[in-house]
Amino acid sequence: MGIYQHIKQEAFEANMQLPALGLVLFTFGNVSAADRSLGVFAIKPSGVPYKELSPEKMVIVDFEGKVIEGSLRPSSDTKTHAVLYKNWESVNGIVHTHSTYATAWAQSQRDIPIYGTTHADHLTVDIPCAAPMDDEMIRGDYEHETGHQIINCLNERGLHYREIEMILVGNHAPFTWGKTADKAVYNSAVLESVAQMALLTEQINPEVQRLKASLIKKHFERKHGPRSYYGQ
Amino acid sequence: MGIYQHIKQEAFEANMQLPALGLVLFTFGNVSAADRSLGVFAIKPSGVPYKELSPEKMVIVDFEGKVIEGSLRPSSDTKTHAVLYKNWESVNGIVHTHSTYATAWAQSQRDIPIYGTTHADHLTVDIPCAAPMDDEMIRGDYEHETGHQIINCLNERGLHYREIEMILVGNHAPFTWGKTADKAVYNSAVLESVAQMALLTEQINPEVQRLKASLIKKHFERKHGPRSYYGQ
Amino acid sequence: MGIYQHIKQEAFEANMQLPALGLVLFTFGNVSAADRSLGVFAIKPSGVPYKELSPEKMVIVDFEGKVIEGSLRPSSDTKTHAVLYKNWESVNGIVHTHSTYATAWAQSQRDIPIYGTTHADHLTVDIPCAAPMDDEMIRGDYEHETGHQIINCLNERGLHYREIEMILVGNHAPFTWGKTADKAVYNSAVLESVAQMALLTEQINPEVQRLKASLIKKHFERKHGPRSYYGQ
Amino acid sequence: MGIYQHIKQEAFEANMQLPALGLVLFTFGNVSAADRSLGVFAIKPSGVPYKELSPEKMVIVDFEGKVIEGSLRPSSDTKTHAVLYKNWESVNGIVHTHSTYATAWAQSQRDIPIYGTTHADHLTVDIPCAAPMDDEMIRGDYEHETGHQIINCLNERGLHYREIEMILVGNHAPFTWGKTADKAVYNSAVLESVAQMALLTEQINPEVQRLKASLIKKHFERKHGPRSYYGQ
Repeated sequence: MGIYQHIKQEAFEANMQLPALGLVLFTFGNVSAADRSLGVFAIKPSGVPYKELSPEKMVIVDFEGKVIEGSLRPSSDTKTHAVLYKNWESVNGIVHTHSTYATAWAQSQRDIPIYGTTHADHLTVDIPCAAPMDDEMIRGDYEHETGHQIINCLNERGLHYREIEMILVGNHAPFTWGKTADKAVYNSAVLESVAQMALLTEQINPEVQRLKASLIKKHFERKHGPRSYYGQ
Repeated sequence: MGIYQHIKQEAFEANMQLPALGLVLFTFGNVSAADRSLGVFAIKPSGVPYKELSPEKMVIVDFEGKVIEGSLRPSSDTKTHAVLYKNWESVNGIVHTHSTYATAWAQSQRDIPIYGTTHADHLTVDIPCAAPMDDEMIRGDYEHETGHQIINCLNERGLHYREIEMILVGNHAPFTWGKTADKAVYNSAVLESVAQMALLTEQINPEVQRLKASLIKKHFERKHGPRSYYGQ
Repeated sequence: MGIYQHIKQEAFEANMQLPALGLVLFTFGNVSAADRSLGVFAIKPSGVPYKELSPEKMVIVDFEGKVIEGSLRPSSDTKTHAVLYKNWESVNGIVHTHSTYATAWAQSQRDIPIYGTTHADHLTVDIPCAAPMDDEMIRGDYEHETGHQIINCLNERGLHYREIEMILVGNHAPFTWGKTADKAVYNSAVLESVAQMALLTEQINPEVQRLKASLIKKHFERKHGPRSYYGQ
Repeated sequence: MGIYQHIKQEAFEANMQLPALGLVLFTFGNVSAADRSLGVFAIKPSGVPYKELSPEKMVIVDFEGKVIEGSLRPSSDTKTHAVLYKNWESVNGIVHTHSTYATAWAQSQRDIPIYGTTHADHLTVDIPCAAPMDDEMIRGDYEHETGHQIINCLNERGLHYREIEMILVGNHAPFTWGKTADKAVYNSAVLESVAQMALLTEQINPEVQRLKASLIKKHFERKHGPRSYYGQ
């Protein structure tokens, strides 16, 4: 039992939730779980089918993106995870998927408008879609820059990663995060559901308006505020 | 075996139908079952995943919303259930979900038009979408007021809760009810199916008209009237 | 072992395919299987959930719609089945469902245009949508008249029930048939798939044209003509 | 153990993936696996349900479309497979399905525009939709000509079968291929997912633009170039 066993186990279990929740086709997704006291995270190896995964196959990487332990190559998105862990100190889990509806919104380069309380139970603003990177960033260290693109998008909009745990990367796909890998997976599933309902809402009523401020406030507070009581 | 065992069991079984019918993601839903002779209902505890539920975990609450028995916190929507039970004397089961299509209609703030016999087999009017609450109600006792919003909507439209067992709460999601918890769950699944087919109907034919009166009358009577004979 | 055992078994197995193929919610569908030498058909009892069905519960009915054997009430659509069997001598299986996409087209009161070879592998014309019945027929013997509405629709369009084994009843839902109950169920699944693809086709290209005559002819003949060779 | 056992096994396993991946209804699809040293391929027999398949039932056919071994009739699309194997020397697996979204695009006679990185991870251009065949080809050796229609479409557009492993045949449905039968099945599932997301993308943003060249180049190279490192 190595010192990384707990995050390997956590990353493994969180990765296995992705196919169970219908969020991935083949290997189009990855989850990592961090231990901040050790300064590392465990992440899915690259290209390994979900049914062949095991905790032992997880790769241990530090916050600079350097492999610390593991014989397999880490996910190709590893540098994006590393940048986010390095910059966001209370995040311990990150998920990337190409889930159908969230990816379609990302491809459309539109923020997901806040149309209902399902959305407001989780965040008080539209789910941001970061602009596609400029050509210089793309030609550079691409996955590393993807992390910075995400961070810059939140900063430019005055959003904090503790309050908003999901984003779309324009033309690409969603990333979500949280205090644990499990919470980050939860956020991926919520995002996919909210993304589907937002499209349907616009199809049912093309003139639909965003949720009014009082309802946004109420629903967010009952789940997140100091007097939160929500759980359904 | 406590005196509430029968409604705990009924509420448990009805809650477990929600994921089986594809009506909930995670814990986004709840079912309650009432015993009017005892003046209480059993309801899902708040935030407990479906796979960890058991009859013993159900919480017993009276029609004022006061917890009578149970160590877990009841669903955050408990006060809405309580208000409806208090005001609607023949209702013994209530369901709340965020099912995809019904919630999209709620977010769109549109009634679901009666386009076919699947709808008419269950109710003779458009499925109403109650207006979002005004800001004062939202800031007040929110879940309690949600119950009154539902009751007021039916009253304003001259509808009776025995004839129409489903409603959308604008910007939020659907509620359904019935003589038993099982019937209320059935109504939630019917509502989701009718909601999906209504959107598809408008997409196939944007000029589609509501079902004509003679067909509405015929289908409803064969299922509900004194000479009902329907069951498929 | 009664003399009706074979059609009870056939009807039972065919009915059980409906939920397996995703064509029914609860009891919203029924299949019958006929034996023309005995002049009867076996049909699903009314309102019995699929998981409680068994061959013994099937009801035996003659082509006038009279119950011959069975303690349960036959499906409320029994008279429609009876009329079709009486008038269409080579049909031995009939299916009625409220499957999502086919029902949405029926509610839209539009024929399903022939857009591709999946459709042409099964029939050479648009899938007809019979007009809703006039008010007199609705007030009369409704399910009996539904059968006549189907027959009249085919006659008016010069179509033969051996060449086209599926129809939409306007505002209501689809009926399919075939030489066996199994083939009728197959046709219901094909119809649902063709209905979904036709809507998607129009959404992708609102200017799409019907399949050209040469392709319709080729695909139908390779599956149905004297020189048929199709099977995939 | 015959000399064809390995490709029979490979074709069998690849065929069985189609229903598991939700790409076929009934028998609406087929996979073949080739052995170029033997100059033959193994293909699904015509009209046999997936649950009755076994490696022994696969039919061995040469690249002229002649049956070499097997008592069952080969898939009706066998000649299309043969033409492609004969002309494309590094292809060892071919798949044909009528999967829902890819078929809807084929029926719409539109190429699938490259809207995101999921698409760009697999090919750098729009997924081509070959024009429907002219009437003379249709009346001729239809399945043989379907193969030529596919080859001609790529040639006219200056595309190479090694770089683009999927195509839509106008009014009909998709074909995919690859170095192995398994890779060809993978491509069919990717195509179906990309086809669904492309439609959703246009619905969310009717003004959406194609992916910019720098992102197409980056994503394709990280998966396919000499310095590829992608696997998720």
